Amino acid sequence: LKSNTFHMSMLLDYYGELLTDKQRELFDLYYNEDLSLSEIAEHVGISRQGVRDAIMRGETILRDIEDKLGFVKKYSKYEPKLREIAESAAYIASVNAQVRNYEIAVRVDRISKLVNEMI
Amino acid sequence: LKSNTFHMSMLLDYYGELLTDKQRELFDLYYNEDLSLSEIAEHVGISRQGVRDAIMRGETILRDIEDKLGFVKKYSKYEPKLREIAESAAYIASVNAQVRNYEIAVRVDRISKLVNEMI
Repeated sequence: LKSNTFHMSMLLDYYGELLTDKQRELFDLYYNEDLSLSEIAEHVGISRQGVRDAIMRGETILRDIEDKLGFVKKYSKYEPKLREIAESAAYIASVNAQVRNYEIAVRVDRISKLVNEMI
Repeated sequence: LKSNTFHMSMLLDYYGELLTDKQRELFDLYYNEDLSLSEIAEHVGISRQGVRDAIMRGETILRDIEDKLGFVKKYSKYEPKLREIAESAAYIASVNAQVRNYEIAVRVDRISKLVNEMI
């Protein structure tokens, strides 16, 4: 049954607020806390089948939203790129500490500030 | 009646796929094409009140999604920041054309490449 856990955690992270509280709770226990269906059933006091149905319904909803909006596909690539920009800017700043070019110093500080606002 | 047109266009741009085709069409005619309720009613062959109700329902849905997900609030600030990073990187590259520091050239090219992948 269990789908790609990493992807499901991402979908929950991006769109979880569009699920009901109950769907989100069950989904979180299954995909983030890694409980089994039986453990979740015992924990929340509904049948194993009921848990399974709710999680599969949640999956369908989240996948459908991602198919329509595509924010995970688009924005999950942003964070590693922003981190690499931040590292490159820090490296330029360290090289420029020897070069001592004022214009470069000002602009690279600006890049660092902007990228840190986005991370 | 008409709400903040710019904000409504943004909401439609981000989340429009979660509306029905009909809701999206009416919303687009009203907020992007700037037709009046009467013009839309004539265009699509339903009552003015029907158009009004559908657009208001669409507004409620889109506002509710933004309240829950907040992607417009978060990501609409990204584009101007990314453009400013791109400009600062281009400026550093132009200054470095005189300075001729190889490490700075490599890193600033990398920043330009990454930021252009995001814009």
